[in-house]
Amino acid sequence: MEFAYSPRCQDYLDKVRAFMDAHVYPNEATYAAQLAANGLERWQPLPIIEELKEKAKAAGLWNLFLPESEDGAGLSNLDYAPLSEEMGRVLWSSEVFNCSAPDTGNMEVLARYGTAEQKERWMKPLLAGEIRSAFLMTEPDVASSDATNISCSITRDGDEYVINGRKWWSSGAGDPRCKIYILMGKNDPDAVRHQQQSMILVPAGTPGITVVRPLNVFGYDDAPHGHMEVRLDNVRVPASNMLLGEGRGFEIAQGRLGPGRIHHCMRTIGAAERALELMVRRAMSRVAFGKRIADQSVWHHRIARARIDIESCRLLTLKAAWMMDTVGNKVAQKEIAMIKVAAPAMALKVIDDAIQVFGGAGVSQDTPLASAWAGIRTLRLADGPDEVHERAIARMEMKRLSNEG
Amino acid sequence: MEFAYSPRCQDYLDKVRAFMDAHVYPNEATYAAQLAANGLERWQPLPIIEELKEKAKAAGLWNLFLPESEDGAGLSNLDYAPLSEEMGRVLWSSEVFNCSAPDTGNMEVLARYGTAEQKERWMKPLLAGEIRSAFLMTEPDVASSDATNISCSITRDGDEYVINGRKWWSSGAGDPRCKIYILMGKNDPDAVRHQQQSMILVPAGTPGITVVRPLNVFGYDDAPHGHMEVRLDNVRVPASNMLLGEGRGFEIAQGRLGPGRIHHCMRTIGAAERALELMVRRAMSRVAFGKRIADQSVWHHRIARARIDIESCRLLTLKAAWMMDTVGNKVAQKEIAMIKVAAPAMALKVIDDAIQVFGGAGVSQDTPLASAWAGIRTLRLADGPDEVHERAIARMEMKRLSNEG
Amino acid sequence: MEFAYSPRCQDYLDKVRAFMDAHVYPNEATYAAQLAANGLERWQPLPIIEELKEKAKAAGLWNLFLPESEDGAGLSNLDYAPLSEEMGRVLWSSEVFNCSAPDTGNMEVLARYGTAEQKERWMKPLLAGEIRSAFLMTEPDVASSDATNISCSITRDGDEYVINGRKWWSSGAGDPRCKIYILMGKNDPDAVRHQQQSMILVPAGTPGITVVRPLNVFGYDDAPHGHMEVRLDNVRVPASNMLLGEGRGFEIAQGRLGPGRIHHCMRTIGAAERALELMVRRAMSRVAFGKRIADQSVWHHRIARARIDIESCRLLTLKAAWMMDTVGNKVAQKEIAMIKVAAPAMALKVIDDAIQVFGGAGVSQDTPLASAWAGIRTLRLADGPDEVHERAIARMEMKRLSNEG
Amino acid sequence: MEFAYSPRCQDYLDKVRAFMDAHVYPNEATYAAQLAANGLERWQPLPIIEELKEKAKAAGLWNLFLPESEDGAGLSNLDYAPLSEEMGRVLWSSEVFNCSAPDTGNMEVLARYGTAEQKERWMKPLLAGEIRSAFLMTEPDVASSDATNISCSITRDGDEYVINGRKWWSSGAGDPRCKIYILMGKNDPDAVRHQQQSMILVPAGTPGITVVRPLNVFGYDDAPHGHMEVRLDNVRVPASNMLLGEGRGFEIAQGRLGPGRIHHCMRTIGAAERALELMVRRAMSRVAFGKRIADQSVWHHRIARARIDIESCRLLTLKAAWMMDTVGNKVAQKEIAMIKVAAPAMALKVIDDAIQVFGGAGVSQDTPLASAWAGIRTLRLADGPDEVHERAIARMEMKRLSNEG
Repeated sequence: MEFAYSPRCQDYLDKVRAFMDAHVYPNEATYAAQLAANGLERWQPLPIIEELKEKAKAAGLWNLFLPESEDGAGLSNLDYAPLSEEMGRVLWSSEVFNCSAPDTGNMEVLARYGTAEQKERWMKPLLAGEIRSAFLMTEPDVASSDATNISCSITRDGDEYVINGRKWWSSGAGDPRCKIYILMGKNDPDAVRHQQQSMILVPAGTPGITVVRPLNVFGYDDAPHGHMEVRLDNVRVPASNMLLGEGRGFEIAQGRLGPGRIHHCMRTIGAAERALELMVRRAMSRVAFGKRIADQSVWHHRIARARIDIESCRLLTLKAAWMMDTVGNKVAQKEIAMIKVAAPAMALKVIDDAIQVFGGAGVSQDTPLASAWAGIRTLRLADGPDEVHERAIARMEMKRLSNEG
Repeated sequence: MEFAYSPRCQDYLDKVRAFMDAHVYPNEATYAAQLAANGLERWQPLPIIEELKEKAKAAGLWNLFLPESEDGAGLSNLDYAPLSEEMGRVLWSSEVFNCSAPDTGNMEVLARYGTAEQKERWMKPLLAGEIRSAFLMTEPDVASSDATNISCSITRDGDEYVINGRKWWSSGAGDPRCKIYILMGKNDPDAVRHQQQSMILVPAGTPGITVVRPLNVFGYDDAPHGHMEVRLDNVRVPASNMLLGEGRGFEIAQGRLGPGRIHHCMRTIGAAERALELMVRRAMSRVAFGKRIADQSVWHHRIARARIDIESCRLLTLKAAWMMDTVGNKVAQKEIAMIKVAAPAMALKVIDDAIQVFGGAGVSQDTPLASAWAGIRTLRLADGPDEVHERAIARMEMKRLSNEG
Repeated sequence: MEFAYSPRCQDYLDKVRAFMDAHVYPNEATYAAQLAANGLERWQPLPIIEELKEKAKAAGLWNLFLPESEDGAGLSNLDYAPLSEEMGRVLWSSEVFNCSAPDTGNMEVLARYGTAEQKERWMKPLLAGEIRSAFLMTEPDVASSDATNISCSITRDGDEYVINGRKWWSSGAGDPRCKIYILMGKNDPDAVRHQQQSMILVPAGTPGITVVRPLNVFGYDDAPHGHMEVRLDNVRVPASNMLLGEGRGFEIAQGRLGPGRIHHCMRTIGAAERALELMVRRAMSRVAFGKRIADQSVWHHRIARARIDIESCRLLTLKAAWMMDTVGNKVAQKEIAMIKVAAPAMALKVIDDAIQVFGGAGVSQDTPLASAWAGIRTLRLADGPDEVHERAIARMEMKRLSNEG
Repeated sequence: MEFAYSPRCQDYLDKVRAFMDAHVYPNEATYAAQLAANGLERWQPLPIIEELKEKAKAAGLWNLFLPESEDGAGLSNLDYAPLSEEMGRVLWSSEVFNCSAPDTGNMEVLARYGTAEQKERWMKPLLAGEIRSAFLMTEPDVASSDATNISCSITRDGDEYVINGRKWWSSGAGDPRCKIYILMGKNDPDAVRHQQQSMILVPAGTPGITVVRPLNVFGYDDAPHGHMEVRLDNVRVPASNMLLGEGRGFEIAQGRLGPGRIHHCMRTIGAAERALELMVRRAMSRVAFGKRIADQSVWHHRIARARIDIESCRLLTLKAAWMMDTVGNKVAQKEIAMIKVAAPAMALKVIDDAIQVFGGAGVSQDTPLASAWAGIRTLRLADGPDEVHERAIARMEMKRLSNEG
């Protein structure tokens, strides 16, 4: 065992940190101001992002996420994880490095399962940061964490597929730069349980698509990216847009979700680390009843637990990344499920304590805490709620012990 | 001991419930639509509220909150509590009954401590629902839960007082109907610890007042009521606007906060009760992995704990109300502090579980859950953070046992 | 509503407190010493108990528990509850007042369901404190919280019943004064679900009975009362020993458990109250790092939460008692289930915190904390584990909302 | 980073597991039986232990704990940790490998700080497993977690030191094989804060020593090892028994506690791992209300959380061990403090859940759960209570951020 980051990882980490210091933290206010200046026209890209993307490219900090591919920086999941954590300290900063969801997951899907043509048409501009993408999976009317419940239909009709359904939490689908959706639907409800689903490429703007409305997360619309409800009425796409083949949607989903979850977890850990930093600094700066808050033992308890829980979770996540690198995403599924449950729960507690020490400022726009909390709260629901992952972990434990006899 | 509501209370409760069924729940969507229609002009009263106020007056459901006064309905705190709980199921509904914060607290202050002239000028239109009011206590730059930290100055200058300071979380100060502020400041930093503060009436619109900006709670601006930051630069008011006398601000604050906290707690319990109801109904309506969520034991656990915790908290709050009625707010201070800590913690857990069972809908605008959670999260900070009340309770326990020897 | 104890209750409470002060607390060490003096012969009654029983009788503090009966003091459940709480401060003290489990439950069963002969033979000496009794319900081999799992057989054979089975957690069955068991078994496995079970009187010492061994609770054998494993091999009792009739065991169990649970809960609250008292006194008496522990905010938090949780739980339990008195044990089943879950969880937390402030003394024989904790931990399992009661509560909530539509 | 155990570690781990399977688990009942057979003479070594010690020596599994020394197996802390975890599955098994507290810590002290003579006289027979030792630090009358509170005096008198004081939780001091104590006392109350204390060797049986009584942990006396209260009245030892020099006791304590804590944490993780295994197997074997407990989602939740928390804690502990090996115990003090807090809290929760699924068997002598719980509960108090370590961690966080500016 060895707990130090690799030299390659450490080197990138130093660069990402320097970039954050030089370009991201100083522009948090700019970002807010540009968004506010848009008034009700909130679904517009912000100039500061495009500006910083150029700087990140120039610094060699671009597409860091893509393991086992010539198109990325060639970092393993393990080496990428600490970089992702760093980006998580400012939630919008991932896009600056072309490392933001759902594009990263979508690029991974195209890299692994796309045809040469699909890659040329969609992956290339995504890798270049010229367009963005959306992932249409979750549905409002069913418990879609159980993939067999998915009801959106994909029906073959000659050289085309016809798509009908309603999706929501389609993040980024309101962004004018968003040019392509990867959609999960059912092509054959009569097939065996996990071969009913397919994934297909749907260009934004195809007739029949309606972006119904933005969804809020605890009052935040998360503009300009946002989360959209999308209706698809007889949307027709060429048969060649099918990914991998009919009935293989579940298989792709499994492959897609592993890395996506690792990234979310690492960003979540970064957000928690920043919250702890803010909490400690605030506690050192305020006095109540004649004593610094930092000298009150209830805050010792909270700070210590935060440090313990962040570090535990980080190690758990890094181990999951290491397993993905060494034994593959499939064998690592228990470890991935574990961090999917553990990281958001940990961060919500840490951030909530940080909010508490800030008082009114903590829930307001004056700190990044409340928005981080709200965003991370959705991670206990997105890509399967906690309950689904806990069930999976428990069943794997049972299976292991049953096999041991 | 007797755990049944009094006939008088039960009678009012039936009427309030009937009113909620007939007029409030059916207009939740109207409220949202009218607010949305205001676009960026969000700090405007909504017609539906004014409409429903007339209906509530007609139904005899008006100013139910004011105990020991000819001006209210003459209900005790204990009899009012269940009504307040009922209103808490829809957060904006309290205003319909002229029972909403901060007006209730402000009216209580005027009723108890106001001069005849002050009552005529400000309390009368407040009781009539013609104007609204704000309470300017919290300050951004200090831990103002410790009242001795307050830095806003109130300086006598001839027949006037001159006020300088910065306040925030001044709820309702952006509402055009808001005509009067009750402001807490320091008139004498050299007096003994709890006689440095005064409360004074400051008419909205007095020169020198700037409503700086609205504050958000998580992503909610809580328009049209909202929470404002207010700057006061050499604001001059007549000396007769002083409440009760110089140096008596702390005393008034103590008297004001008891009933206000009871109301908040009861509304919080109402919000939790509604969340539990939504949680149970949702659990009964959704199927995952071949089983109703309602048949999964983790939800049995959560539903049972919610029922237990709501009921415990309700009894604790009702007992506090009973003590306020029987031995007075001062002797009831431990009980008031206890519910101030207990009710928000309880409700946050229940609502969070309800959010979880709803998935994406839970964090969105499609259920009242996320906004209830955010609003109640502020109650762990407002009127003194948990830590301050826990300290007070602990010290009262110690004193009790020290006296027992 | 009215939160004051009735004058009758308050009067008894004063007397019980005076008795505890005069006779129980001063003899805690005596009790321990007499038990230790028994050496390995631990299943012997202690002289101090018999001595104090006479004193309690003389003080009119005897059989306080039996509501709705001429044989007890005639106190309602609500009036008895605070007395039971008081006894819970010293776990063995209930016996002094002839108010200890399982005798109270067994006497209630005999009072309600016994024939005149059964009462004369067993209830009378129990009421007089001349003999003791045991309740044989739980079985080691099945999840007997689900009564349909019970496997002990009761088979009619002429004028007798023949009993075969294995029971455990038969508290008090090792006490030489224990003369009678009430046993739950199955007489007809083919009857409908809740009519398969019967309860029958089995005199201790009947041939075929083997008291196998004492069971420990976290290292405590709880001598001289203790918890026994009992084997019954072809044990024959007269047919007239059947209680109420074949197939009515479940019905009796339901009636028996309500009051028993209330008593356990109230005693648990008493134990928690005492732990809080010890915690506060200890915190006031010890200094670490230059500061009294009582001045450290983490202890403010714990003390305040303890006070809040104890008081909430007490009110919840008193309300359950009130409902049992006013609407009957059956309608009150949700309230009874609620306190069955809530009280032990609350007390375990409070006592654990008290242990923490005492350091090594807390886990040792030098405070009553560790033994109280261990005893109360069993209450999350006895008479149905938490999970069973949570399931019941949740299902009642669902039913209620389903009925409301 | 690299999460696989080293080949050397893995090799030892396989051997320890094989030994546990062959010799320890099959003798758990033997151990209990031999202890029971001792009757009231509980402070006698058990034959089975001496038997297994020979087997462990023969298998080359002896003194595995001692890093950086020729006397042990030469394993690093990191390589030893998984072995220690394995031993933690059966608490008494550590002694079999001569790896049990407090001997390991005492041997480390002698190895690091002992003179050649002290090593020859005491360390050699300890390493050979011929004698045992005790550590006399904690005192009943003060909060001795704050070392400056220690009141036992060590006074120079000619060629001797005279010791007076009262110690407790002196584990193993009742064992007839225990021949030597390492005692912490104060030689100079006027020296600077952390140079007042000394550590000195006190042979068992020196005149003036009284082993007052055994202390219980919950109801366990933990015989035959146990925890003793020891009084020292004018106990005289040669001046050469002083360790390292007067005033250096605190320094030795700091060095001693690091490895001891790692071992405790790893054993604690082993106990939790075993509890999880028992919990899962039990859940798979029992049916309630027509369903296997293993198929109820509340147990999915608990099993998953147990798996997550054990694995997180294990990684945290292994990282602490790695830091001790690479940067030294002093620099690793935050990591050591973190696991000192985290591991017991984690294990207590896991074991408590396991108890719950076992029902009555869980709290009894029929499973190892209750005794494991009780033993681990003391770890939240021993070697400094949680609060002390949380304070230390929080202060290190503050210092770090203060330095970063």
